[in-house]
Amino acid sequence: MIERLCVIGVGLIGGSIAQAAREKGLCRSIIGVDSNRHNLQQAKALKVIDQGVSDVEEGARIADFTVVATPVGAVEAVFNALRPCWSDDAVYTDVCSTKRNVLEAARAAFGFVPDNFVPAHPIAGAECSGVGASRSHLYRGKRVIVTPLSQTDRTVLAKVTAFWRGLGAEVSTMEAAHHDEVLAATSHLPHVVAYALVDMLGKKDEKREIFQFAAGGFGDFTRIASSDPRMWLDICMANRDEIVPLIKQLSVELEAIADMIDNDAADELLETFRCANSARQRFLNHFAS
Amino acid sequence: MIERLCVIGVGLIGGSIAQAAREKGLCRSIIGVDSNRHNLQQAKALKVIDQGVSDVEEGARIADFTVVATPVGAVEAVFNALRPCWSDDAVYTDVCSTKRNVLEAARAAFGFVPDNFVPAHPIAGAECSGVGASRSHLYRGKRVIVTPLSQTDRTVLAKVTAFWRGLGAEVSTMEAAHHDEVLAATSHLPHVVAYALVDMLGKKDEKREIFQFAAGGFGDFTRIASSDPRMWLDICMANRDEIVPLIKQLSVELEAIADMIDNDAADELLETFRCANSARQRFLNHFAS
Repeated sequence: MIERLCVIGVGLIGGSIAQAAREKGLCRSIIGVDSNRHNLQQAKALKVIDQGVSDVEEGARIADFTVVATPVGAVEAVFNALRPCWSDDAVYTDVCSTKRNVLEAARAAFGFVPDNFVPAHPIAGAECSGVGASRSHLYRGKRVIVTPLSQTDRTVLAKVTAFWRGLGAEVSTMEAAHHDEVLAATSHLPHVVAYALVDMLGKKDEKREIFQFAAGGFGDFTRIASSDPRMWLDICMANRDEIVPLIKQLSVELEAIADMIDNDAADELLETFRCANSARQRFLNHFAS
Repeated sequence: MIERLCVIGVGLIGGSIAQAAREKGLCRSIIGVDSNRHNLQQAKALKVIDQGVSDVEEGARIADFTVVATPVGAVEAVFNALRPCWSDDAVYTDVCSTKRNVLEAARAAFGFVPDNFVPAHPIAGAECSGVGASRSHLYRGKRVIVTPLSQTDRTVLAKVTAFWRGLGAEVSTMEAAHHDEVLAATSHLPHVVAYALVDMLGKKDEKREIFQFAAGGFGDFTRIASSDPRMWLDICMANRDEIVPLIKQLSVELEAIADMIDNDAADELLETFRCANSARQRFLNHFAS
């Protein structure tokens, strides 16, 4: 059992980890680190954490298991703050939506990736944010991807894997680069597209009030545009090498569809829609299984 | 009360109209018209209709209220079939997702738009289809847009409005051209984008199995890509004048976002994401009210 779990960043993700770890009996005590005092107060009031501090070093020094649950853009600063108190006997993991940049941040802070750090990405979230939205079942049945390096300590990897499984998640292992490629396609690109579309229609809505005639399908399609803009800014910048080509490819695909409609190319358009339709069925089969 | 309701096209939309009309006591009997005999048998077995025929004229001749609930592409053929039995004493409406082309189809079939035909579009649906998926509450609390012309008979308009209200819907009136403009933005464009994205990612999935790592956000975003491809082909072709410029505009917007990421234009990208975020909140406020 973990004696002292340290969660750095007590928002939706970190708060849900803390809640689940306590509920599942994975740790004896939980210390939360957050630069926002109000967040810490709320987390204590909700009994998500036992103790809250604003200083990374103070929080992590006495912990045997530390989870970095900050936004992507803050990871390097957190590693720098952890460096003076980094313990070879402790276990470290993170939750960032991009993984190559987390490895780069570690290399920038330490000169190498510590053997007792296991990069991880729980594929779970919500369009709401903050510790008030956190819940102990957020990771139940969800996937967590860990991206260890060849030198990663196998005992530490086993502990991190057991931790996420203990929270109810299913753990997969892959290369950090492959992770970033896959997530760019299934998560980052859809977010960018939802933001782009709602931004564009929002400007039309100001003039013509179109949203009052939008229906449930629009609500589902645009749900991810309610996600935290700053968090997604960070993710886009951190994974730009993968995201930018995908955005450009989709832009070309849209132009092609516009041409099919313009040129009355019904067979070609129907084939495109049908391929999409059966591809989504394939996704549903995975998702349901 | 309607003596004999005729529903032409007994799928999800037509079947749900029939079920709701019966449940709300709006009609004494219901005759369904469908070219698919299996559909008619199923509709009768489910007690959605009292009688089923495959011939439009046979079904509509003795009806005092006829709803054309076929896909967009079939409307002109239905009008041609209705012409010999068109009754000045009956009421006619439709459910098509595009309205200018329905008026054009009427003009092509009759030489003019009959005064006792009221174009209507219930903004409700689902990604499933067929009479087996129909349900009496499909229109409850949903919007129906009617697009009468200046010469439309006011008594007939009042009857059609009362009919849709009777099914539980909220009825709005607008010009057909405005309807097509608004729906292109809030419904047709999102469908095209969902199809384009899932088609593109589906091809990646075949090589790299990316869908197994997709999460709930992806599921919501792509739900409308499970809609009926043929129906959406028809809608795209019928409303091409509105849809094509919107697709091209979104394509340009995506290119701009790709450039912002590439050029590290964080402030500009954050502003785009924030505008989208607050625009979606505006949509939610409408939708919840």
